[in-house]
Amino acid sequence: MPHRFHGERTLMRIFIGESDRYRGRPLYEHLVEFFRKRGLAGATVLRGVSGFGAHATTHTDKILRLSLDLPIVIEVVETQETLDALLPELDRMIEGGLVTMERARVVLYRPHDVSESERSRHRIEGLVAEDEPDAEADPAA
Amino acid sequence: MPHRFHGERTLMRIFIGESDRYRGRPLYEHLVEFFRKRGLAGATVLRGVSGFGAHATTHTDKILRLSLDLPIVIEVVETQETLDALLPELDRMIEGGLVTMERARVVLYRPHDVSESERSRHRIEGLVAEDEPDAEADPAA
Amino acid sequence: MPHRFHGERTLMRIFIGESDRYRGRPLYEHLVEFFRKRGLAGATVLRGVSGFGAHATTHTDKILRLSLDLPIVIEVVETQETLDALLPELDRMIEGGLVTMERARVVLYRPHDVSESERSRHRIEGLVAEDEPDAEADPAA
Repeated sequence: MPHRFHGERTLMRIFIGESDRYRGRPLYEHLVEFFRKRGLAGATVLRGVSGFGAHATTHTDKILRLSLDLPIVIEVVETQETLDALLPELDRMIEGGLVTMERARVVLYRPHDVSESERSRHRIEGLVAEDEPDAEADPAA
Repeated sequence: MPHRFHGERTLMRIFIGESDRYRGRPLYEHLVEFFRKRGLAGATVLRGVSGFGAHATTHTDKILRLSLDLPIVIEVVETQETLDALLPELDRMIEGGLVTMERARVVLYRPHDVSESERSRHRIEGLVAEDEPDAEADPAA
Repeated sequence: MPHRFHGERTLMRIFIGESDRYRGRPLYEHLVEFFRKRGLAGATVLRGVSGFGAHATTHTDKILRLSLDLPIVIEVVETQETLDALLPELDRMIEGGLVTMERARVVLYRPHDVSESERSRHRIEGLVAEDEPDAEADPAA
């Protein structure tokens, strides 16, 4: 059965530095692997071209670090409960950084490998396809 | 007359893969073109450096796809009504992906080609320029 | 004493073009410098790979500009009051662009240069470390 994922969710965004490491690996790679192992639906890693912030080691060499340590933003959309359960481990892994949460409504979540016959289950909420019966209709009606 | 755009809007974010295609073209290019033809005020396409999620074809070759299919995030800020009207077509075009909506308040929207004399109309809400009369003032007062 | 930064904040996002300039410098570099001088906790600059919008000079040469003027998104997380105080200057500096504000909850803000002994002060809200006393506990209890 496909994974239902519509409705109110939370967008968690993690701001760290590209050079941050955890157990010898880039922290952002470790976090992506961690999210995948924990069964999250997805994660997106964006790399900035400039910036400053909590991920910079000190204030004095910040100008130097700007060119060496580009900002990384990792984004995850999940239920609040799923994200809350990750926080103790994130707290241990993130040495310097910022983590924010925002409300986000999921209007479409459709895995690439869903079959044609199940595609309507992943249709945007409220939409009814023109060429197929309403998959949400009460079969007893 | 310049386009008024201040106030409560919706940020729609579309998460797909860089290798997703629609009618022989990259899907993200198709979506940008679609948004422009529909008269939207703007669209921004960000490419991630890593990730996983609904855009990945299968779970088994995900590690391989991570290096081949980078995540794409397309962002649009519009009225909820304008975005809702796009959903049926987005539903047809997006084979695998995630679409979220968030509330966003627009405090400045200023097209580059606005004339100096009209610039105050695009001023951030609540601000009054020091060197010009308040463009929002009631002329009958 | 470390900077406490938890709780309800505002995410400000500024959409401009990479070729926008202010006083002979790229506008996005100027904005990052401006935010740092004003004491903000951080700023992240993302560069898009495609897009269109308020930052494009005219509608007629938009196709040409798409390849020349990539979108820039600058993100700042701060208190609403801090951001409001920046608006008059942003209004002067941004010739064409879009500025949005969204609510964001900060669950972790931890500068890289915090000492081990103070790290618990930057712990994610509600978490208690297993290997140290609760830093938030009432010392009189």
